[in-house]
Amino acid sequence: MNHLADLVDALPPGRVLTDPDVTGSYARDQTFLPPGKPLCAVTAESREDVIATLRWAAEHRVPVVPRGAGTGLAGGATAVDGCVTLSLTRMTAIRELSPADEIAVVEPGVITADLDRAARAHGLMYAPDPSSYEISTIGGNLATNAGGLRCVKYGVTRDSVLGLEVVLADGRVLATGRRTMKGVTGYDLTGLFVGSEGTLGVITEATLRLRRAPETPPATFAAEFPSLRSAGDAVAAIIAAGCRPSLLELMDRNTLKAIDDWKNIGLEPGVRAMLIGQSDDGRPGAAERMAELCEENGAGFVATSSSPEETEELIGIRRLAYSAKERLGACLVEDVCVPRSALPRMISEIEAAAERHGVLICTVAHAGDGNLHPVFVFDRDLPEPPPHVWAAADEVFRAALALGGTLTGEHGVGVLKRRWLELERAPVAGEMERGIKGVFDPLGIMNPGKAI
Amino acid sequence: MNHLADLVDALPPGRVLTDPDVTGSYARDQTFLPPGKPLCAVTAESREDVIATLRWAAEHRVPVVPRGAGTGLAGGATAVDGCVTLSLTRMTAIRELSPADEIAVVEPGVITADLDRAARAHGLMYAPDPSSYEISTIGGNLATNAGGLRCVKYGVTRDSVLGLEVVLADGRVLATGRRTMKGVTGYDLTGLFVGSEGTLGVITEATLRLRRAPETPPATFAAEFPSLRSAGDAVAAIIAAGCRPSLLELMDRNTLKAIDDWKNIGLEPGVRAMLIGQSDDGRPGAAERMAELCEENGAGFVATSSSPEETEELIGIRRLAYSAKERLGACLVEDVCVPRSALPRMISEIEAAAERHGVLICTVAHAGDGNLHPVFVFDRDLPEPPPHVWAAADEVFRAALALGGTLTGEHGVGVLKRRWLELERAPVAGEMERGIKGVFDPLGIMNPGKAI
Ligand SMILES: Cc1cc2nc3c(=O)[nH]c(=O)nc-3n(C[C@H](O)[C@H](O)[C@H](O)COP(=O)(O)OP(=O)(O)OC[C@H]3O[C@@H](n4cnc5c(N)ncnc54)[C@H](O)[C@@H]3O)c2cc1C
Ligand SMILES: Cc1cc2nc3c(=O)[nH]c(=O)nc-3n(C[C@H](O)[C@H](O)[C@H](O)COP(=O)(O)OP(=O)(O)OC[C@H]3O[C@@H](n4cnc5c(N)ncnc54)[C@H](O)[C@@H]3O)c2cc1C
Repeated sequence: MNHLADLVDALPPGRVLTDPDVTGSYARDQTFLPPGKPLCAVTAESREDVIATLRWAAEHRVPVVPRGAGTGLAGGATAVDGCVTLSLTRMTAIRELSPADEIAVVEPGVITADLDRAARAHGLMYAPDPSSYEISTIGGNLATNAGGLRCVKYGVTRDSVLGLEVVLADGRVLATGRRTMKGVTGYDLTGLFVGSEGTLGVITEATLRLRRAPETPPATFAAEFPSLRSAGDAVAAIIAAGCRPSLLELMDRNTLKAIDDWKNIGLEPGVRAMLIGQSDDGRPGAAERMAELCEENGAGFVATSSSPEETEELIGIRRLAYSAKERLGACLVEDVCVPRSALPRMISEIEAAAERHGVLICTVAHAGDGNLHPVFVFDRDLPEPPPHVWAAADEVFRAALALGGTLTGEHGVGVLKRRWLELERAPVAGEMERGIKGVFDPLGIMNPGKAI
Repeated sequence: MNHLADLVDALPPGRVLTDPDVTGSYARDQTFLPPGKPLCAVTAESREDVIATLRWAAEHRVPVVPRGAGTGLAGGATAVDGCVTLSLTRMTAIRELSPADEIAVVEPGVITADLDRAARAHGLMYAPDPSSYEISTIGGNLATNAGGLRCVKYGVTRDSVLGLEVVLADGRVLATGRRTMKGVTGYDLTGLFVGSEGTLGVITEATLRLRRAPETPPATFAAEFPSLRSAGDAVAAIIAAGCRPSLLELMDRNTLKAIDDWKNIGLEPGVRAMLIGQSDDGRPGAAERMAELCEENGAGFVATSSSPEETEELIGIRRLAYSAKERLGACLVEDVCVPRSALPRMISEIEAAAERHGVLICTVAHAGDGNLHPVFVFDRDLPEPPPHVWAAADEVFRAALALGGTLTGEHGVGVLKRRWLELERAPVAGEMERGIKGVFDPLGIMNPGKAI
């Protein structure tokens, strides 16, 4: 442990935490995976802290697990044995916010929603809004390429990043990208870091693109469907009609039932799915048009909002989804994504897997993007998902791939999805990815065992 | 030359061209750079042709220069001594076009505008529209991450690519990305290939994102300004007001003068800049609102179109820009990009450089993105730009970097910009890029000497 003293010496006082209770609290994210036993945690307050930590780690070949808020759903921030957990949550400065250029320069520990609020003060917004945006960090969003509800219109985190500052595994600082809207000098290193789950370096600063915030509050509708297929048809019709929804969320019956059991939303027996959508572009009648298309495609009940209170009520149903499921038991939250037209088939596949394995699965989907979150509910007393849940999950993953989809739309591979990675990725791609990893991190100390 | 016989044997008849007149015609793009002397040209008609060529090239350590239509402005497709020029223009199949999923799967030789037209038949469009879109290929657009007029609203080529098929330097086939709108398995290899200018592999197929085509024809305005600053202020005001233009182009006086001398557009003496903009989202009054903002910011004359003919007239002025300059002499087309607020300052810097070095520079800008194309006009009889033109260009590049900008917004580095690359790129980034190059192309045969 002598080398730990060197780390303590290399950093300002108080940065290195070794109390097992404390390091244990930094050791896992929102998954059930049993974490390794960390050597220590470092709470970085500056780029220099990160540099000192990585230099030391490189010298002593100690694995480093970068960590934002730990809200991840794939085990990306889960500790490995003998690692330093490098927490970035104290680097919360918004260094610059330029309304004229519509960019912000931020530290990685900034909470996503805080940046959005800071931008709104200037009539701008930070578009990427994972459901966790009140608790997740920009650094974590970047490292996972987080999606969110608005991404059906505004794209994922990648689409809002212009440049990064990264501390590499040997402590050197790499600047990628630029402050301009466009630019093509050199390879796209920015894109390479986005979604790399902390395996290539530690993001210490990001130059982000802001957008004009809509001037009027969004127009909202909700519609109930007698079948998944009819809900899927409505999604297709809404997109095909050029409605450009800024949110388009689908909930299956199990999800609605969980919400109804809790909050009594008056769920009728024949309702198999609900679609909730918004338009934020201020066109009069936008929500009504989408509601109409739902009716034309078989929706029974449809509602549109004409006041902020009604909007809150409709959107509120979607917001309750996760908590409602958590009341039922422990939740394995999954994240497949399929071509949009395959959405109804994918939901049928999920239902079939649930039935075959006797698992309760509640599904919510970012329907406009074909991204589904089947939530596998299991006994709260179990330390991790039991075999029949994994068996059902395995079928769901394979079905997604068979439909031309992917294992993960926005949560990442982490450790959770590594077992399935080779089903999706061709061997040559794996070889190239490992080669790239070797270029940035020849010693293999950056978040080993994750993502690739 | 014995190994050339092996290549001929490995390919179907007629693919290998060795007549110096023919190979010479494949040896340069739209730059003035003197090309090397190619060994031969291969006109690939299938992925298998590409594989056979690369296997052979790897075996014999022969450099390979991939080539689309040769419309590039940075020398990316310029031949190097002893190379195979690998032309992809015959791979023109649109393999799939799915309106339901809004994607297309295409071969690299498809002409950009052909894909757009095929999409329009289904109410969709392919958004990236370089001015060269009637002559450039999708493969070339991907390899340069081409921009275009619409990219102020719809983003650059990268924003429309979901996945690629690439033949690597050793002839192996790599599939990157996916068919879904979102997905985060593994590193972003798709993004890495986009903009890599043929230095990492040959793109043989692309899965592209289509978008709904606007339902109504775009609304258009044009405005004349007494100063560059006032035009720049109008751009800022248009963006800040949330107008979401689908095109926003600025022309300086020299450009307008060149057009006026040719087509007599009635240019008034006091006009220093013209702004032309469009909105395609169908909101009534969108062009009028932008025109109003131009007036509020000092525009003298403004016009909006109320018919397709008038629109053609206004946009036609912008379309004439390049040809009008070519009438004046040989043209070195440059491509700096600055943060949007720095646009007027950048134009002043360009004017200062022009004056200092006695060079005629005509500038057009994709103003909404801060991307400027200063065109340096010089004596048509010269084989390449003379020293004082390069001296002026050098000052323009340095000024762009000093303003927080980049050397190239959309044309690429090629060979043309390599001299300046290290001014923009930090040494660590260069080292990482060379490392990545080594992973994909350990023998260094893919388009050597370009891009990085
Ligand atoms: C209720 C709930 C709802 C959610 N909804 C969504 C959603 O809608 N969309 C979505 O995409 N995700 C969602 N998530 C998942 C999660 O919030 C996101 O993955 C988020 O981006 C993680 O951010 P974090 O700060 O918590 O990162 P962490 O969980 O701490 O880390 C995530 C990964 O990023 C790496 N990392 C963190 N910071 C850095 C850094 N500075 N440099 C390098 N690597 C770093 C870690 O090593 C790890 O691999 C949700 C989670 C919960 C609990
Ligand atoms: C009049 C005019 C207007 C222009 N306007 C614009 C504009 O608005 N925006 C813009 O961005 N550019 C513009 N350009 C530049 C040029 O058209 C673009 O760079 C275009 O993307 C090049 O396409 P190409 O098929 O001609 O490619 P080439 O010039 O043949 O090649 C360009 C690069 O791509 C590589 N390459 C080509 N095909 C492949 C492949 N299949 N796999 C791997 N690498 C490949 C080549 O090696 C080279 O490095 C313009 C050019 C002209 C002449």
